[in-house]
Amino acid sequence: MNEAKKKLAITELALRDGHQSLLATRMRLDDMLPICDKLDKIGYWSVEAWGGATFDTCLRYLKEGPWVRLRELNKALPNTRIQMLLRGQNLLGYRHYADDVVQKFVDMASANGVDVFRVFDAMNDLRNVRTAIKQVKANNRHAEGTICYTTSPVHTLEYFVDLGKGLEDMGCDTLAIKDMAGLLTPVNTRELISALKNEVSIPLHLHCHATSGVAEMVQWEAVHAGCDIIDTAISPLAGGTSHPATESMVAAFAGTEYDTGLDLVALQAVAAHFREVRKKYSRFESDATRMDTRVFINQIPGGMISNLANQLKEQGAQDKMDEVLDEIPRVRKDFGYPPLVTPTSQIVGTQAVLNVVSGKKYKVITNETKSYLKGMYGKALGIINEDVRKLAIGDEEPIDVRPADLLQNEMDALTREIGDKAKSVEDVLSYAMFPTIALQFFEERESGHFNPEPLEAPTEPAGAHSEVVTAQSL
Amino acid sequence: MNEAKKKLAITELALRDGHQSLLATRMRLDDMLPICDKLDKIGYWSVEAWGGATFDTCLRYLKEGPWVRLRELNKALPNTRIQMLLRGQNLLGYRHYADDVVQKFVDMASANGVDVFRVFDAMNDLRNVRTAIKQVKANNRHAEGTICYTTSPVHTLEYFVDLGKGLEDMGCDTLAIKDMAGLLTPVNTRELISALKNEVSIPLHLHCHATSGVAEMVQWEAVHAGCDIIDTAISPLAGGTSHPATESMVAAFAGTEYDTGLDLVALQAVAAHFREVRKKYSRFESDATRMDTRVFINQIPGGMISNLANQLKEQGAQDKMDEVLDEIPRVRKDFGYPPLVTPTSQIVGTQAVLNVVSGKKYKVITNETKSYLKGMYGKALGIINEDVRKLAIGDEEPIDVRPADLLQNEMDALTREIGDKAKSVEDVLSYAMFPTIALQFFEERESGHFNPEPLEAPTEPAGAHSEVVTAQSL
Ligand SMILES: [Co+2]
Ligand SMILES: [Co+2]
Repeated sequence: MNEAKKKLAITELALRDGHQSLLATRMRLDDMLPICDKLDKIGYWSVEAWGGATFDTCLRYLKEGPWVRLRELNKALPNTRIQMLLRGQNLLGYRHYADDVVQKFVDMASANGVDVFRVFDAMNDLRNVRTAIKQVKANNRHAEGTICYTTSPVHTLEYFVDLGKGLEDMGCDTLAIKDMAGLLTPVNTRELISALKNEVSIPLHLHCHATSGVAEMVQWEAVHAGCDIIDTAISPLAGGTSHPATESMVAAFAGTEYDTGLDLVALQAVAAHFREVRKKYSRFESDATRMDTRVFINQIPGGMISNLANQLKEQGAQDKMDEVLDEIPRVRKDFGYPPLVTPTSQIVGTQAVLNVVSGKKYKVITNETKSYLKGMYGKALGIINEDVRKLAIGDEEPIDVRPADLLQNEMDALTREIGDKAKSVEDVLSYAMFPTIALQFFEERESGHFNPEPLEAPTEPAGAHSEVVTAQSL
Repeated sequence: MNEAKKKLAITELALRDGHQSLLATRMRLDDMLPICDKLDKIGYWSVEAWGGATFDTCLRYLKEGPWVRLRELNKALPNTRIQMLLRGQNLLGYRHYADDVVQKFVDMASANGVDVFRVFDAMNDLRNVRTAIKQVKANNRHAEGTICYTTSPVHTLEYFVDLGKGLEDMGCDTLAIKDMAGLLTPVNTRELISALKNEVSIPLHLHCHATSGVAEMVQWEAVHAGCDIIDTAISPLAGGTSHPATESMVAAFAGTEYDTGLDLVALQAVAAHFREVRKKYSRFESDATRMDTRVFINQIPGGMISNLANQLKEQGAQDKMDEVLDEIPRVRKDFGYPPLVTPTSQIVGTQAVLNVVSGKKYKVITNETKSYLKGMYGKALGIINEDVRKLAIGDEEPIDVRPADLLQNEMDALTREIGDKAKSVEDVLSYAMFPTIALQFFEERESGHFNPEPLEAPTEPAGAHSEVVTAQSL
């Protein structure tokens, strides 16, 4: 019994974060379905296959119905739980949605095949994940709460433990630690996992990007400290800005009390498939997905740095990168130390660029910064710099309620708006999250001719668009 | 005192194994010298910068004097020990040399700037490293003995410990464990290092390629089990078939009792340099340098598999790869389980290909197989299959002496042979190891016009030649 309890469980990321991290989220269903039979027999705890940036990419570039993809994967993986990544009240879009949209989305995702919902909020504001998590449980699905890991003077072990307890109390079945930037080191991982293990009784699930080259050691230490489930990607989609390789972690723990029980020979067949698949997407490969250890110095996620580089280039200010990297921690402090993940990474990064390029701090303030400082993304853990808030919103009162509390139910309005262009409630939800590209998708579908981005021979450099999608939700 | 003793030491591989593993050994001196000032201030235990395949590549492709490179690096790194990789009695070439050549080579390498000699023999036959190691000590340099790690029924912990003790008794200052294939896992590493630590008193130095995605965990466990020095490569030259990243391992151990004391900010400047340098050599990048976990299944080094693929292709037998991968362990058993590293990996691999392609085992036997079975590469640890030996060499007696015992001193003859084309004893040594390409190099030098392989715009696919050089001495 004890032995069985100690067995390490694995979530395979090949179908979502693996290609999102390395191939700009471009993998198509046609390259997934042929291997599903073998994937289904591996014995994974779950296969992450939906959500994150995949929904956007399906509609925008691949012209592939995201809900169709989910149904097809669900059929092809009858014995394996499909996991999705959900940005709490933002769902998969870029604003807060009213509760009825969130509830309907979770209902339809459940109905179409999602078994495990990993729900996170960039601010770690529990109010922003509550509706989604409650609805997951109402659908009898597995709810995984998430701690977005970051470091700052206010992000203490006690804080993370309280956050974990809050998620457990909310009814979560498991607790994910999401280290999007590769900030965890073996030493602080052991401390964090041990502290959580002492106070939280639901299983712990670690998601740590390999960007800084320490993720394998981080997982090794995490498991020894009591972590129950780890996220890995089959080797051709592992490493760099992706994750530790599935086979490597399985082999590392083989024969130990944490033995995963997974078959390395069976995993090789999966690896062989994705080794070939990766070659097809070579135009989406870039230097920006390689290992990058700068995070040890500046605590800034690698994906964010390449976005900043693009922004500076557009403004002809490439030489200002060092100043921007110095400015980011200051902006983050002014903002009360949000974790840097979508959308806060973009808000902080863009404001830092403006502070440097305009020549004066907060001389130009983005609308997103204004919303943030008004509390429209949720509550920051640290103290907001009131002088900066004043510059941004003047005498306007920041809100102290949950952002979505200010929203009226909107499913009916959305349904009316889209009219008969939507063929299903799923279509309405697609439209809710991505109004413009969903409409275009519906039109192409109606015309019987989809116009996907070509896989070969780019007509423009692959960099520009792909970066945006890559950086979305690490 | 105890604290100081526990500090972890680092060997930087950027200038040798880093680019040998990832860029077909093509990095030029011009891309090394500008960063040497910064490298010199890091505080590495040593910087590996010479030997392995670099000597061959300098003469063959880069038209760069290998001895000049050594002298220049020595001048540019006044405070840092330069380390080289030496294949025992083979030096950097492909045959056994007489003792006087080995001695002269070590003398001249010392005189020109090598401080640390890592000496290994593919068979782990101590007789093949004794002359070199004695000569290193005669030159008052640091002698590092090497265990070539492999797995087989005869490669027991006791065997490796005896080997380590043998090298210590020979006067080695440190003991390297060389895992060229990525066969070490965290668990067997802990056992191996602990066993060695119990019986061997010289410091242990771990060299493990990252090919299978477990090297960071292997080093983490090794250090905790008492390993004193680890080999790492600065991040732009790390990962894949190379090694764990320097910054990652430094960050992982920072603040622990094993803290390396190296400055992560200073390392970033080094990383920034090599990030740009790597781009210049992009034509030598290939899929074959990516992470590859197949070694967990077949115990065959990744570099060897790509060589086999080339051989099979030349013979139009690409479809026979699986049969060859099955045949290799059988040939290796017949041969008494040699470690698979240059030159044994080529001997075993080629024979396995012939056994499969010819349709009958040992129907065709290479000259190298004959030499091997005659004992001309040294003594195998396991028992040789006598039936196979008979097929190869008939009634000829295998030798039981050290292969080089059969060689007369040859420096005088070599010096006469090359005549006034050699301008120095170093030239004679270059000629001894690479007769054809050294001669060509001397001629080009004489003519005042070198004709190096172009860095840009290949006139033929980069694969063919580069594979050979990559695979030389992992
Ligand atoms: Co992620
Ligand atoms: Co090596």
